[in-house]
Amino acid sequence: MLFKQVTIIGVGLIGGSLGLALKKKKNVKTIVGYGRRRGALHKAVSINAIDRYCLSLPKAVKDTELVLLATPVGTFEALCRLMAPHLKPGTIVTDAGSVKGDFVDKLTALLPDEIHFVGGHPIAGREKSGVMAATGVLYQGCRTILTPTPYTNRAALEKVTALWESVGAKVAEIDPHDHDRILSFVSHLPHVVAYALMETMMHPRIAPLSPVEYSAGGLRDFTRIAASSPEMWRDIFLSNKKAVIEGIDAYQETIESIKKKILNDDGEGLIEIFKRANDIRGQATR
Amino acid sequence: MLFKQVTIIGVGLIGGSLGLALKKKKNVKTIVGYGRRRGALHKAVSINAIDRYCLSLPKAVKDTELVLLATPVGTFEALCRLMAPHLKPGTIVTDAGSVKGDFVDKLTALLPDEIHFVGGHPIAGREKSGVMAATGVLYQGCRTILTPTPYTNRAALEKVTALWESVGAKVAEIDPHDHDRILSFVSHLPHVVAYALMETMMHPRIAPLSPVEYSAGGLRDFTRIAASSPEMWRDIFLSNKKAVIEGIDAYQETIESIKKKILNDDGEGLIEIFKRANDIRGQATR
Repeated sequence: MLFKQVTIIGVGLIGGSLGLALKKKKNVKTIVGYGRRRGALHKAVSINAIDRYCLSLPKAVKDTELVLLATPVGTFEALCRLMAPHLKPGTIVTDAGSVKGDFVDKLTALLPDEIHFVGGHPIAGREKSGVMAATGVLYQGCRTILTPTPYTNRAALEKVTALWESVGAKVAEIDPHDHDRILSFVSHLPHVVAYALMETMMHPRIAPLSPVEYSAGGLRDFTRIAASSPEMWRDIFLSNKKAVIEGIDAYQETIESIKKKILNDDGEGLIEIFKRANDIRGQATR
Repeated sequence: MLFKQVTIIGVGLIGGSLGLALKKKKNVKTIVGYGRRRGALHKAVSINAIDRYCLSLPKAVKDTELVLLATPVGTFEALCRLMAPHLKPGTIVTDAGSVKGDFVDKLTALLPDEIHFVGGHPIAGREKSGVMAATGVLYQGCRTILTPTPYTNRAALEKVTALWESVGAKVAEIDPHDHDRILSFVSHLPHVVAYALMETMMHPRIAPLSPVEYSAGGLRDFTRIAASSPEMWRDIFLSNKKAVIEGIDAYQETIESIKKKILNDDGEGLIEIFKRANDIRGQATR
């Protein structure tokens, strides 16, 4: 038994999947869910992702040992302000948000000294959303990044590590700003790249030829990724601006170097790049 | 009955699938296959993609009414030189190659005046290859581009159109250079973009953080396309250099404009681009 009581704020795919896995492993005695929509919370109880729910945040976090923030990143600040007066000393607050950076210091500063904030980010697929998509195996083998700083309570960090490891996650500790840079390269940049490719089909140089009508495999492979929520990606690009721009700059340099190799008939140089891409593929999908 | 005899040069996925479809529709009395490997040709006969095969090119094209070149583009010139003396007047030579441009005039000039060359390119998926991957429905609803020039024999063009339409293809006539520009944007550019993205993960700015270890959906969507044959893509990029560079330039302009929108907090401008990408997706997959 890791905790007597844990509160999950936002019981969707991410929060609900953690609840399901913790209940299955019997690592937590009571899981309380908090959210704004009674229907979703009711469903979460029915699939055994949480034991009970509260529509009042103070009640949901009262007497709890760990709070997981699993709502959109934009809500974290307001939630921490609201719950701060109601947490008992020693409570751990952690999150599952995809942007860290200055956020970690900001949330730590918002909470009383005797409350321990630990930044976290399980890198789990998010093609579907909502508690009905939750599954107890989502975190099996899933990379989860924790982002301690020099101010992070070590005991709290160990307990959050134990929590994620108990549901099968592989935990790594990474500096919050490095976390944002990594995510910018492996997640945000691919979306910039895919959106830009689709937009290029409308470039005045080619649009009159209606290229999209003749697209086969090549372009179509990009259409799934370019179909993600426009609002979500606007928020991610703007909230992680510095790291996203760093990724775009590195990418433009790479494109420029491939272009030079094509112009110089450097077939060997091209083959080297293509082979490296195949190697990386092996690492990314293993 | 469209033709009494057709010869397919190279009986792999593309040639074999056309043979299968033609045999099924009973549009051609006899289909002769030519290739270098007896084993593959034997298989082609056994699945009824061709009626018989020759390992001698002169014998394979003698008395035939239409020759389809379905080998790699790099072999077309030599094949045309070799077969030219053995074709009977009025024979149509067409191809299924993915690069056109100056090629069309070059092959037309190589063949005697009374032989009619018609450039063609069925835009069919090519994830698998070889005759055992051939299927009689590959061209059902498949866009096939024919690339007539002012020197193209109209009757021959009509017969090639009828051939592709008889197996379910949707035929469009496009200038050979415009064909190359379209393919550069919808097929070659996506490969440049995917290879460059993988290569960016090795950029000195990020490589020390081992980003690939933390890749989820975003990067993984690109790994399939970046797994194609390095040698094939080197040849395509170098043989269609002018159009590929045009595509890369248009793409770089687009990336630059997205970057500016992020730097200027132009959320509305980003949403516009992302929504357009979703619209294009609808067109590309319909």
